[in-house]
Amino acid sequence: MASNAPIVRHARREDVPAILQLIRELADYEHELHSVEATEAKLLETIAFAPSDPASAAAAPAADGLPQTEPTSPAKPARCLLLETPAGAVAGMALYFYNYSTWRARPGIYLEDLYVAQSERKRGYGTRLLVALAKEVVAMRGGRLEWSVLKWNEPSIRFYESIGARMMSEWVGMRVDGEALTKLAGLLD
Amino acid sequence: MASNAPIVRHARREDVPAILQLIRELADYEHELHSVEATEAKLLETIAFAPSDPASAAAAPAADGLPQTEPTSPAKPARCLLLETPAGAVAGMALYFYNYSTWRARPGIYLEDLYVAQSERKRGYGTRLLVALAKEVVAMRGGRLEWSVLKWNEPSIRFYESIGARMMSEWVGMRVDGEALTKLAGLLD
Repeated sequence: MASNAPIVRHARREDVPAILQLIRELADYEHELHSVEATEAKLLETIAFAPSDPASAAAAPAADGLPQTEPTSPAKPARCLLLETPAGAVAGMALYFYNYSTWRARPGIYLEDLYVAQSERKRGYGTRLLVALAKEVVAMRGGRLEWSVLKWNEPSIRFYESIGARMMSEWVGMRVDGEALTKLAGLLD
Repeated sequence: MASNAPIVRHARREDVPAILQLIRELADYEHELHSVEATEAKLLETIAFAPSDPASAAAAPAADGLPQTEPTSPAKPARCLLLETPAGAVAGMALYFYNYSTWRARPGIYLEDLYVAQSERKRGYGTRLLVALAKEVVAMRGGRLEWSVLKWNEPSIRFYESIGARMMSEWVGMRVDGEALTKLAGLLD
């Protein structure tokens, strides 16, 4: 549906082909296209979507003011915000989940992936998506909006710092996956 | 209740004083005791606990084999595993939430904090907690078990690498919190 301004809204099930297209573009940008195992079926299983019928009761805002989607769960932890252009096209996405700060004993948001299509850059769409996430953290009385960035991606780091983010340079991530994960799970059996 | 071996179980509401004690010990170890804003009331609001009555219907394992707790939600995203010694004391904890890999379109677990009390080290309790988390990732057909570590904490990094974790050295975390978060939320108003 066309409108006069870009809008940020929760993804619906019918947006999945556009989401997969953006994921593949982002992976290509990060030189990781070969790592993409996402499919439309897997995305449908793991993202908490907004209802397809915008007039449905579930489409109304929740009591706490947050946008309504399917409930999140361990198996379906992700939500996805989309940037829709005035022409009605999906131009960007923010895929995120809810994290937790032990020091603060407060929830927050972790932005797993932010992407705006190459052809739609320089229009402030990335900022709009980040602002929508910051609003949700504030509305839920959360503590932090966090994400990670590749160290070589200096243009993105400069942009993130310009909107108030700081680098957590004293920390490094650790990961167990694949065969190492199976081995760890069975270590004491 | 005493038993012959240490056990790993989900935290119950009555464990909150012990959890707060472990959080404060961990913060002290990381030279961050002044940053601890957690209170018993805040922990009760934000952690999904197992039922206090182990005979209740909710205490049975869920259909998917995962331990049953209150449902997680955006406002209550955290779960907490505890290590209980043969003497029945709480000696360690793993506070975690569910994350998401876009490339894989699969959920996983992010371990926010792992801690074993100073007086209970060198007994394999940290390994037991990590193994329990790896088992949960495998059981949920998740992709990854992830966490972060302070770069100066070389003993921990060596331990994590010994059980199969690898450092994600090419990535750096970004964070917006406090006044910067409020400012970002209002940037387009």
